[in-house]
Amino acid sequence: MMNRNVAPEARGITFTGSTLDRADQLRVHPERLSVAWADTRARVVRLDGLDPLPDDEGMLATGPIEPGARLADHALLGLQEDGVPLFIALHVEKKPHEPPVFPPKVWQIVPHLRPDQAALYAGARSLVDWHDRHQFCACCGSPTHPVKAGWSRQCGTCGAEHFPRTDPVVIMLAEYEDKVLIARGARFPPGRFSALAGFVEPGETIEEAVRRELWEETGIRTGRVDYLFSQPWPFPSQLMIACTAQALDCALTLDLEEVAEAMWVSREEVRAALAEAPDARFQPPTPVAVAHHMLRHWLGE
Amino acid sequence: MMNRNVAPEARGITFTGSTLDRADQLRVHPERLSVAWADTRARVVRLDGLDPLPDDEGMLATGPIEPGARLADHALLGLQEDGVPLFIALHVEKKPHEPPVFPPKVWQIVPHLRPDQAALYAGARSLVDWHDRHQFCACCGSPTHPVKAGWSRQCGTCGAEHFPRTDPVVIMLAEYEDKVLIARGARFPPGRFSALAGFVEPGETIEEAVRRELWEETGIRTGRVDYLFSQPWPFPSQLMIACTAQALDCALTLDLEEVAEAMWVSREEVRAALAEAPDARFQPPTPVAVAHHMLRHWLGE
Repeated sequence: MMNRNVAPEARGITFTGSTLDRADQLRVHPERLSVAWADTRARVVRLDGLDPLPDDEGMLATGPIEPGARLADHALLGLQEDGVPLFIALHVEKKPHEPPVFPPKVWQIVPHLRPDQAALYAGARSLVDWHDRHQFCACCGSPTHPVKAGWSRQCGTCGAEHFPRTDPVVIMLAEYEDKVLIARGARFPPGRFSALAGFVEPGETIEEAVRRELWEETGIRTGRVDYLFSQPWPFPSQLMIACTAQALDCALTLDLEEVAEAMWVSREEVRAALAEAPDARFQPPTPVAVAHHMLRHWLGE
Repeated sequence: MMNRNVAPEARGITFTGSTLDRADQLRVHPERLSVAWADTRARVVRLDGLDPLPDDEGMLATGPIEPGARLADHALLGLQEDGVPLFIALHVEKKPHEPPVFPPKVWQIVPHLRPDQAALYAGARSLVDWHDRHQFCACCGSPTHPVKAGWSRQCGTCGAEHFPRTDPVVIMLAEYEDKVLIARGARFPPGRFSALAGFVEPGETIEEAVRRELWEETGIRTGRVDYLFSQPWPFPSQLMIACTAQALDCALTLDLEEVAEAMWVSREEVRAALAEAPDARFQPPTPVAVAHHMLRHWLGE
């Protein structure tokens, strides 16, 4: 039996629609894991640093398990639909000056990946990068080592177990009188606007985080919040939670350290921007980003 | 201007409905933070280890800033509606054998807290516990110190900045022919059932995580997934994301290491359980847990 994971709600949102069975039961059964590792069909996903290496058909590069390679240095990503086990090496050769977030080169490669391969890449990149940045125990400072087929790390000294992070981020369009609020982040190029976003903090709900972020960054109060859809974002490992929020007023008071500009835009203005019309009022977010799909969804597309 | 954070969607779900303004702009402005610390009205929330200390009116115990106390040893939780700054000490005196999760004593105290105080407790507990378990840098193993008013830690050696964790967890009711699927976890007492749940992993959406967990733990396939509401869960720091999922079949194949029993229950059976009827088929989850509200929501309550 395979894990049929293709989601009705996946509307072509990048990094969604994985067809891999994560086969979590293998992670905690060393003998079953060894069988997967010994499978002559098993493949190892290859990355270029943390970047994807796609072939002409949009598939991620893979290779056989090299002679002498050790299971302990790899994570089991899961089983393909044909049952072939997929692994990835946990050691990453980071390139000099590799930007930790928003690597522009990756944004150019990702649209050429087959959707299920982009989803596979997202999980693999987040996992490998997490291992790279979590070699030591946050509790006691001692070295940790991968356990559970690369899905956690354990401290050799105090025994604490550490799991990969997934940081929930709310990203939202406030609505007011048939307009939505978009913003240009302090580090965005001129003209480029997107949805506002921020990390969910300990002790708050998704809806409370949406209201807090809109309040902090633009000074507007919001009532009802509706969840739209979500997206894994592997730079380094966010869960983007897309929402709309009903604004109770429209006067903006910007936090200029976070937001350079913000404006309410009409459906016509959003349509022109997405169509890249020469007289469009703003440049929309890249189709790789969930904000792009939020704007399309708002237009009813 | 105050942060009006009381949420229309907060249907009495424990740990939601905070009225605190987190005042994030103070965290990064040392001089504004010092003004808050010097405010003679400022209060420090007191905990008993990691447990709440409520008074007879359901308020968390607070005290003044003690002479000699250092701002660097405290986190700014935020500003009350009357503008009073609330801090908490970052050093926690953990009690011997303090259970890291599911502390039964806390579950007994929390229902006696005023809802906004329970929400305040949730954020404070998660934050303090995170500091306690993250004294060292995961990148290089060196000691870290609190920065940004206790909302992050920085490594004195490599400079890496670490933020408090919030781990997204999906919790779901699968529906099939007007019944929902509930389960008894392998460590639950006999008779006690709840909704299935699991951590969202890197590289998957909320909906994909719901389908994967149901598949892994009960062997059922699901189609449409709908988000219901969310809850912060401070044992130690989860974001519970409640969903329903439409099951495509009802035959169960349990992962017995995770799930001792699972069953499809009718509205009548859920109603009897929530009413604690003597002949009820199962004991429902505690009202503190979001699963309780998911069952009530399913009944249309």
